[in-house]
Amino acid sequence: MTEKVDTLFINALVLTMDKTLNQYDPGAVAVNGDAIVAVGSEAEIKNQYSADEVMDCGGKVLMPGLVNAHTHVPMTLLRGLADDLRLDVWLMGYMLPVEREFVSPDFVRLGTQLACAEQIRSGVTTFNDMYYFEDHIAKATADAGLRAICGQTVMKYPAPDAPAFEDSLAMAREFIQKWKGHALIVPSVAPHAPYSCTPEILRATADLAKEFDVPLHIHIAETSFEVDTMRNENGMPVVPYVKKQGILEAKVIAAHCVHIDIGEMRTLLHADAGVSHNPSSNLKLASGFAPVQKMLENGLNVGIGTDGPASNNDLDMFEEVRLASFVAKASSNDPTVVPAATALLMATRMGAQALHIGHLTGSIEAGKRADLILVDISPAHNSPRFRRDPSNAYAQLVYAAKSTDVTDVMVNGKWLMCGKKLLTLNEDELVAEAREIARKIDAFLIEREQSVLSKLIALGGSMEQESFEVQVKVKMTDPDLVIQAVKRPEIEVTAFKHYRQYDDYFFFSDPAQGRLRFREDDLMNAKGELESVRTRLTLLGQKREGKFGEDVLLSRSRFLAPAQHTLRFYREYFKPRAEVSITKDRQRWHIRYKATEFFVNLDQTETPGMGCFLEIKSRTWSRKDAEHKAALASELLSLLGAAQAESVAQDYIDIISATG
Amino acid sequence: MTEKVDTLFINALVLTMDKTLNQYDPGAVAVNGDAIVAVGSEAEIKNQYSADEVMDCGGKVLMPGLVNAHTHVPMTLLRGLADDLRLDVWLMGYMLPVEREFVSPDFVRLGTQLACAEQIRSGVTTFNDMYYFEDHIAKATADAGLRAICGQTVMKYPAPDAPAFEDSLAMAREFIQKWKGHALIVPSVAPHAPYSCTPEILRATADLAKEFDVPLHIHIAETSFEVDTMRNENGMPVVPYVKKQGILEAKVIAAHCVHIDIGEMRTLLHADAGVSHNPSSNLKLASGFAPVQKMLENGLNVGIGTDGPASNNDLDMFEEVRLASFVAKASSNDPTVVPAATALLMATRMGAQALHIGHLTGSIEAGKRADLILVDISPAHNSPRFRRDPSNAYAQLVYAAKSTDVTDVMVNGKWLMCGKKLLTLNEDELVAEAREIARKIDAFLIEREQSVLSKLIALGGSMEQESFEVQVKVKMTDPDLVIQAVKRPEIEVTAFKHYRQYDDYFFFSDPAQGRLRFREDDLMNAKGELESVRTRLTLLGQKREGKFGEDVLLSRSRFLAPAQHTLRFYREYFKPRAEVSITKDRQRWHIRYKATEFFVNLDQTETPGMGCFLEIKSRTWSRKDAEHKAALASELLSLLGAAQAESVAQDYIDIISATG
Repeated sequence: MTEKVDTLFINALVLTMDKTLNQYDPGAVAVNGDAIVAVGSEAEIKNQYSADEVMDCGGKVLMPGLVNAHTHVPMTLLRGLADDLRLDVWLMGYMLPVEREFVSPDFVRLGTQLACAEQIRSGVTTFNDMYYFEDHIAKATADAGLRAICGQTVMKYPAPDAPAFEDSLAMAREFIQKWKGHALIVPSVAPHAPYSCTPEILRATADLAKEFDVPLHIHIAETSFEVDTMRNENGMPVVPYVKKQGILEAKVIAAHCVHIDIGEMRTLLHADAGVSHNPSSNLKLASGFAPVQKMLENGLNVGIGTDGPASNNDLDMFEEVRLASFVAKASSNDPTVVPAATALLMATRMGAQALHIGHLTGSIEAGKRADLILVDISPAHNSPRFRRDPSNAYAQLVYAAKSTDVTDVMVNGKWLMCGKKLLTLNEDELVAEAREIARKIDAFLIEREQSVLSKLIALGGSMEQESFEVQVKVKMTDPDLVIQAVKRPEIEVTAFKHYRQYDDYFFFSDPAQGRLRFREDDLMNAKGELESVRTRLTLLGQKREGKFGEDVLLSRSRFLAPAQHTLRFYREYFKPRAEVSITKDRQRWHIRYKATEFFVNLDQTETPGMGCFLEIKSRTWSRKDAEHKAALASELLSLLGAAQAESVAQDYIDIISATG
Repeated sequence: MTEKVDTLFINALVLTMDKTLNQYDPGAVAVNGDAIVAVGSEAEIKNQYSADEVMDCGGKVLMPGLVNAHTHVPMTLLRGLADDLRLDVWLMGYMLPVEREFVSPDFVRLGTQLACAEQIRSGVTTFNDMYYFEDHIAKATADAGLRAICGQTVMKYPAPDAPAFEDSLAMAREFIQKWKGHALIVPSVAPHAPYSCTPEILRATADLAKEFDVPLHIHIAETSFEVDTMRNENGMPVVPYVKKQGILEAKVIAAHCVHIDIGEMRTLLHADAGVSHNPSSNLKLASGFAPVQKMLENGLNVGIGTDGPASNNDLDMFEEVRLASFVAKASSNDPTVVPAATALLMATRMGAQALHIGHLTGSIEAGKRADLILVDISPAHNSPRFRRDPSNAYAQLVYAAKSTDVTDVMVNGKWLMCGKKLLTLNEDELVAEAREIARKIDAFLIEREQSVLSKLIALGGSMEQESFEVQVKVKMTDPDLVIQAVKRPEIEVTAFKHYRQYDDYFFFSDPAQGRLRFREDDLMNAKGELESVRTRLTLLGQKREGKFGEDVLLSRSRFLAPAQHTLRFYREYFKPRAEVSITKDRQRWHIRYKATEFFVNLDQTETPGMGCFLEIKSRTWSRKDAEHKAALASELLSLLGAAQAESVAQDYIDIISATG
């Protein structure tokens, strides 16, 4: 008598991915309810079990579903939005502004469904997510029938789903309470990264994860910049830092770990932390080559993830598995490391262990949940098939199979795809809905990219403000005249500063856009040593607004803000048509003359060398005020011994532009 | 009135890949005969042309077919045969022995057909091949309707299609004469690589290519080992060396160029040589990261190739294009280099230019051949689509599209695939035929891998031979006794040598396989300096064949050959269960005693230290001779003052094995 089960898979090349990497060919698997009951040779299993549903696998590979160990699934909706950019430009110039504008419960629901469709098609049965509105992601995932660890993001910045980290933390607690114990969803808390969280946030999320015994998902050491900054600011690399904040007391899933050393690997191992390696993302963003072989040698559970589809740009784990092997070989200069079987293990059993759900999924073993996929290895692009060595089967899957070779997917004993047809999602509807979102995002960005000003505002963190200045400027042959003259009794010097100024001007194809100036002010002390540095960004209007008296101008700045990013960032973000640099030495007196405040700048241009100039400036706010100050500025010019000096009606940049 | 053409493609997102990267959306292309007649906006083209066949592309991408710039197509039949091995083990342990046994006109015909099926499916319309029996490859390709540069291999080793290079060269000439002027096939000559060709061969192939004005296809600087060897042996890197042999006078296609410097790039540029970059192969074999960005900056035409499917393991150009971008970014630590448009350009117009057929194919321009593909960018895994920037379309193709998204392929104006159905090849038949070949190769390798001896023979270049030795061995406490005793008048010393010997023994699971010894003999001169090194491989029988007298043994070696490869090679090829090393100092006298030749070895073991030993040995060939020599050896033992010494009936390795 045979035991009756729900489903019997027969006539398959069964790759169990269990501890001894057993293979059965022809093999069979018995599934009852949500669980695998037995696996073995076809003869043996048929002898013991029968079922109403007998799935003849036709010689295909039957294997555990793939585990995507790190992703941000709703970002399917931002796929291909902005590419070939440096991380900061990509993130702060495009992703964050668009997320601030568009991410909502409905956005994450749709993005998750699209991601589930893509992942089911490509044989992923479990994924580990980190994003906003995670409750809606969990619901969409459970409805689609996939298994997932869903991590509610917490960070120090305002997020699309929470104005402050306290709100995120409260959401995370509520989310964990709601989903804990679900058959498919493991809720988790996701402090975004050490650099985007305060020590207080890190400690609070660790406590939360420990309180509910759920995983804690965090980005660790993705870039060398992150590690350098951490060392500079805290005197230690990233892993010891998060350990100090208590993070490693939780069940950690550490995404990336591109720049960690052997000591950090051992610390992670000791804390039973899992790692997610994300080769496509690390390559595409040029983050570096993760030391995968060393992590494996040191006993860490290393899974493989796609990262979010905005930085990949897909959720194709077949591609990631292949790359995990390729990149490890190339970066360690040894083609024998991370062989096919190891890469596939990282994407199945070891990946599940890294996510702390190794007892549930990741291999075909009696008692585990029935998360199974069928892969057709007979197409022309994967022919012929060699059988001399068990490793041939893994090589075929890792080096030649495509995600589109997956034909059938079962998760938790339930069919999600049969014969390449999705059973729980309507792709056409999702694609149409996504098209509508993309249209809106395109419109938003096109509007923004129309003007330099709106691009500037989109960066956030700075304000639009207009400022008007009365300005007079003359060429000086003897700068000492001015230095002596400011000592005259009519002039009250309230402050003096000495700067070295580095200005970079961006020019755009449309002159009406104005020009953007990135200025680095290096403040020098009396000994000529560097005291402090500040950087400012100014959007300069192209046109002079008027002329007051002989040589006095009214100039207009449309925007003035501290420059939070590097010159390189702004260059790649604004993509100017041309760029000009000016270096000068500036002595700047803040004076009062006839109860009116003026700035007196004595500038020695250096690169390019245009000579020495005297500038007298004052802020203004009305035409009448401007006329009054223009008259005073003319008087000052005489007092400072420059009445006869050659008047210059142009900015430095215009002098170059006119002559160069 | 409109002009009548054969085919009108309408309603497409047309990516021309022309000099200005024009896009038309909706765009249209008019094709007549084998050529593109016009490309432009749909309205414009419809206004000028009409056709009986109007292909509504339904919004898909219409673009030039992909150019696979370097491959060995028949190696589809060796796909997945042996992976995760070092280049030499993979090549000399598996590829060459299997090729020697199996490669025939029928093998290359089948392998080419399988490769054509895979390439048509994945949107490749042109490939650049190098293999054996190239005439049969050209025929199969032309029958399948693909465009190819077919390169007949010439090298200094015997090839599957020619016993000597003169034969290959004659074949190449005949091949070029036969195919020159064909509509689809450009014949070429392919000197395999600088290290596998003599200067004479290189010169002869260059002359041949120049005589017929056909391309010359060659592997250049694939590994750092190749470059180091070239520098050591010829005092220059690879490109100057091949230039010296006249190679650069021909229209060169240089595959790989992983390890070339800026000077070499300029030399290649000056010679108008094209380069093929092969990212998967370079990663999988850990050959290194080709300086793609530098080559592009220096103006070289760099195409992208899959390399042979035995080292990739597929012919998927969508994967290669993505990797070309990814690897350039990661290896140059800059995510902005090789953006999507550049990567796609390398796989289309620039690739065709690298193959010296830029006038024929690689872009959608009036006058070029109609080599066109349609790619569906609407599936879930490639949704949504952004249209803000022209670069969005390239990002979608390069970072998210899959080769399986190609739906239709036209080459030279002829349909090869419509709606994913192949029109010129029967895949099911090809896959079945390939299965049969794989079965035979499996059987051949299984047979070979059954014994260490047959694996050894399969390496080629060495002979099986059995040798029998009479041997006596004793432990010595005072080595000086021997050194004095060999001076006795009864003993005639005919030679003396002083060695340092490094022995590595490989043990296998089945003791009947015997043991393999890799010996490095460092010959020392009288001053104790290293004079020369030789390495030998010996397969030692496990069992002693008999005993002659008290302490004299007959030992048997089944195989003895110069070791052409490194210890590491043999370790990875034979995969021994265990390995033991012994280092010793050996003084070796070749003597005559009673008209019989003996070797007297005085060995001081060093690692592990087992003490000092005296060995007396003589080759033998018959039982009677063995008995005679055994008696003489016993006499010699006494003469050398070791009559009372402790007899040792074991090899050094057995002494360790017994005690360790």
